[in-house]
Amino acid sequence: MNNNATLDLMLQHRSIRRYQEKPVPPDVLDAVLRAAWRAPGSMNSQQVSLVVVQDAARRARIAEIAGNQAWVAQAPVFIAIVADQYKTSLGVAAGGAQQTVHSSVEGFATAAVDVGIVLGNLMTAAHAVGLGVVPIGGIRRDPQAMIDLLGLPKLTFPLVGLTLGYAAEEGCCKPRLPLASFAHAERYDAARLPQDIAEYDAVLCQHWQQIGRADGEAWSASLAAAYSRVYFPQVGPAARAQGFGFDGE
Amino acid sequence: MNNNATLDLMLQHRSIRRYQEKPVPPDVLDAVLRAAWRAPGSMNSQQVSLVVVQDAARRARIAEIAGNQAWVAQAPVFIAIVADQYKTSLGVAAGGAQQTVHSSVEGFATAAVDVGIVLGNLMTAAHAVGLGVVPIGGIRRDPQAMIDLLGLPKLTFPLVGLTLGYAAEEGCCKPRLPLASFAHAERYDAARLPQDIAEYDAVLCQHWQQIGRADGEAWSASLAAAYSRVYFPQVGPAARAQGFGFDGE
Repeated sequence: MNNNATLDLMLQHRSIRRYQEKPVPPDVLDAVLRAAWRAPGSMNSQQVSLVVVQDAARRARIAEIAGNQAWVAQAPVFIAIVADQYKTSLGVAAGGAQQTVHSSVEGFATAAVDVGIVLGNLMTAAHAVGLGVVPIGGIRRDPQAMIDLLGLPKLTFPLVGLTLGYAAEEGCCKPRLPLASFAHAERYDAARLPQDIAEYDAVLCQHWQQIGRADGEAWSASLAAAYSRVYFPQVGPAARAQGFGFDGE
Repeated sequence: MNNNATLDLMLQHRSIRRYQEKPVPPDVLDAVLRAAWRAPGSMNSQQVSLVVVQDAARRARIAEIAGNQAWVAQAPVFIAIVADQYKTSLGVAAGGAQQTVHSSVEGFATAAVDVGIVLGNLMTAAHAVGLGVVPIGGIRRDPQAMIDLLGLPKLTFPLVGLTLGYAAEEGCCKPRLPLASFAHAERYDAARLPQDIAEYDAVLCQHWQQIGRADGEAWSASLAAAYSRVYFPQVGPAARAQGFGFDGE
């Protein structure tokens, strides 16, 4: 297993936030998009769409929307990954029925999972052709601004973005919670988690020291700051305004 | 780009529903799990866990829960991919705060996206080591039964599963809606969709004929059946019972 180039691409994933001033050739970008296009999804519903942004002014605007993330303006390609139950609603209508799935937790959840599969393929494909990437959750900071900018119809939602370009830094592999607290055998082992978290806090602090990040925090400290509130509170209201529902099923 | 083994693995993805009676060696499975473990996620929250099921009786039970999907019992490995904001809640508590993110649409959506990224990595890694896979959304048919079987704590949810094993069939690559209706340039192009869908209906019917699937339907027909109702109506209630909320943000 130690000599598998594809596994290595995933094992060595790191976020790149500095890019060369070098465009991504169209055939390279096309190859990445095709790998994402072939990602499987729930019930062959094809409920994910991409908006591929290369226009510099539009990328600058997205950088702003995402909370001034300079790398979004700097990287030559930005891809918005959109949960798309508008496209499926046209399919349902063409089949002589009316779509209701978008009014359920189930519907939004499967679309979000499918968005993640596509994002996973985009990242692995990008690494495979020598591109660096960083996922951009910050587009959920102001979903309505993204919806307007990208001309997204009702029943779609821009869940996450990805910058792509040639890396101008090495990036850095963050340590993780132990493998055994990620992949449980047969049944979920809750008992091990407190100890794993305490140890991981120490490992992560050591990592920040090693790479000279004075502002680096323990995992529990940064999570306490991020998850004791709803980081992007416009997501629920904006999703409802787009026609999604979460009552009942 | 035409000579890239990693891209080919993604381009040639197909669902495998017949498996050889051949176990997955522990080192092979471990390599796949490690590739998934390294998948990036929202804010380093690590809000995804796997439960790796190899026990035959447990796999048989999951096959039943998923609506009698024989391949779940036949394949030697089943992996449940779990949205996990229990683990994060312990981290938040260790950081001296109280988690609220699980009560928001935003919270559930990002966890579902992260589940999808992990699933994407699992599938690509499985292909890279010569395994066949098929994603199993059917575990959402009776989420509570899965929660009980896998011993999942509050604030977790089993969103999707994956069978892994050595293929005993070739599987088949389904055609997709045109690439241009998946990857839009600069702005979402809604105008092209009706024509794309009509053409795809014809292409898909031709495909079913070619592979001798007499029950094959047009895309719009199968989507009308699947998306005019909520396919797994227990997802919303079960997610609420696990402690997730969808009101407000």
